[in-house]
Amino acid sequence: MSGETLLLDYGSGGRASHRLISDLFLRHFDNPILGTLNDAARLDLTGPLAMSTDSYTVDPIFFPGGDIGTLAVHGTVNDVSMLGARPRYLSCGFILEEGLDMDILERVVASMGKAAREAGVFIVTGDTKVVPRGACDKMFINTTGIGEILVDPAPSGDRARPGDAILISGSMGDHGLTILSQRQGLNFAADVCSDSASLNRVVEKLVLEVGDIHVLRDPTRGGLATTLNEIAGQSQAVCHVLETAVPVRESVRNGCSFLGLDPLYLANEGKLICILPEERAEAALAVLREGPHGEHAARIGSVKSVGELGAARAGQVVMETALGGHRLLSMLEGEQLPRIC
Amino acid sequence: MSGETLLLDYGSGGRASHRLISDLFLRHFDNPILGTLNDAARLDLTGPLAMSTDSYTVDPIFFPGGDIGTLAVHGTVNDVSMLGARPRYLSCGFILEEGLDMDILERVVASMGKAAREAGVFIVTGDTKVVPRGACDKMFINTTGIGEILVDPAPSGDRARPGDAILISGSMGDHGLTILSQRQGLNFAADVCSDSASLNRVVEKLVLEVGDIHVLRDPTRGGLATTLNEIAGQSQAVCHVLETAVPVRESVRNGCSFLGLDPLYLANEGKLICILPEERAEAALAVLREGPHGEHAARIGSVKSVGELGAARAGQVVMETALGGHRLLSMLEGEQLPRIC
Repeated sequence: MSGETLLLDYGSGGRASHRLISDLFLRHFDNPILGTLNDAARLDLTGPLAMSTDSYTVDPIFFPGGDIGTLAVHGTVNDVSMLGARPRYLSCGFILEEGLDMDILERVVASMGKAAREAGVFIVTGDTKVVPRGACDKMFINTTGIGEILVDPAPSGDRARPGDAILISGSMGDHGLTILSQRQGLNFAADVCSDSASLNRVVEKLVLEVGDIHVLRDPTRGGLATTLNEIAGQSQAVCHVLETAVPVRESVRNGCSFLGLDPLYLANEGKLICILPEERAEAALAVLREGPHGEHAARIGSVKSVGELGAARAGQVVMETALGGHRLLSMLEGEQLPRIC
Repeated sequence: MSGETLLLDYGSGGRASHRLISDLFLRHFDNPILGTLNDAARLDLTGPLAMSTDSYTVDPIFFPGGDIGTLAVHGTVNDVSMLGARPRYLSCGFILEEGLDMDILERVVASMGKAAREAGVFIVTGDTKVVPRGACDKMFINTTGIGEILVDPAPSGDRARPGDAILISGSMGDHGLTILSQRQGLNFAADVCSDSASLNRVVEKLVLEVGDIHVLRDPTRGGLATTLNEIAGQSQAVCHVLETAVPVRESVRNGCSFLGLDPLYLANEGKLICILPEERAEAALAVLREGPHGEHAARIGSVKSVGELGAARAGQVVMETALGGHRLLSMLEGEQLPRIC
């Protein structure tokens, strides 16, 4: 299919659709379940299960550190994992613009296949729609994932408890700054690169080996600040964060400063927040440091009860600044960056 | 949110996204699982499971008999059902164009909620992306469904056997002609209306009460002709269809004749093909007639072995015409109609 462009009839359900399925999807996503070609895939899986969905509209499609295809695998694998689950199966829905270069589609499909194999998940069912030129911008991908929840109770946003340690698995803002700089045609330092990665193996070690993980959440859209606000709200607690403890690469810090962005509000695609009892923090950090992009894993603060931090109310995030002051870290207001993921 | 238009920051993951979730999605999709607001939903479900995904890009969004929201529920509920499964949970991913009228979004979300309640499924996890004006046409919806497979072996496209009866649950072409006539601004007879409907309850009766269902498939994109070709190919058999037995409403027949379309290639969104042993055909027809749009349910032909019908080869569909001749019914070639579903 190299050198061709995508025609409307590739989404017709007719002969051209079948060719796309056999020449492209079955080849790169090869697995026995997808190959049955029924309306639905048959899965042998026992609950309790975690299910999560995300649509990916990132612009540009290709960027340093990944592309829309890797993102569509990593992002959904990670969301399923955050419930303390082992992701097993993904569905994949493409919306493609008529006239798309088939080589671009094939590169993305190949990336997805590789990312799925690396994460140990199967893409088992799919759908392709082709819309007329101008009705979508190049391509959008939806993936939905399911997997087995490994522990009971599962990590959940409402389980942060006063005294718990707050850890993050690496530096903040890499993905968001990478996308923005690509879009603006800016060239920052060579190490400004998306952190897009699957975190399922790290999560499995956290929940099965470290144990008693209260909250897992990946700080994607809205960044660390927004995600901590969600957790503080769900748990009716206060999150206390030390500004100096939050790892941000120097190149990302410089890029953000140049563009007037705050790395704490930028999306990450291969990082997680882990909240757990203080006495297990060191063991969890050791696991995080061995995971993807884990070299800067750090303890960034702790969960406080209402009243412990002056006037801070339940659901708030308080940051202790480098100079020792305190300021409220609110949820993202407005939009820094559309089509970040 | 009435009277507002959709802004980019509704997809930011920040405060506006949270407002959209609580004011709109939680209200219309209300269920305890969605309400936990974690990255993934926790489901208590035991395998074997069926999983299916579809993206909906239909244009126009609203049409006689349904809208993009009902279609997104019915279509995926039906695909999961076709594996002889009881659909239980849906995910839902919206891609929305900046500037969309919030009243339109709310109408669609309300339709989805109503269709899900009627089908007895929960929408348990979701995602919303807002893309800049011009990057998508109004709205696209992906739904992915999972459910419990009720019988073993499950119905499958490769299980059609010579001697089996081929049934369809109602008239062909209603959805496809409806969309096309809307798009062209044509006004056909008042009963030209989409057949969009959930078939899960009918399927449950077929597999549990009638039993021994070999194949279930809903003839959506590509229509009856393409779907029968898929089944004949998967089962390495010949499908023999009587032209006069295929129910097509007079209004649909007239509309197709006017537009030069063949109703056997038009999409249906609330019909199924059921292939099963001859001796169970009457019992199955009785079930189909009580289902949605079931008044024209009919036996349209039978499965033949290679050699029974002259030179017809495995994987072919042979139609006996009204005049007694035979012609091959091939898969859809080209595209009659983009953005049909």
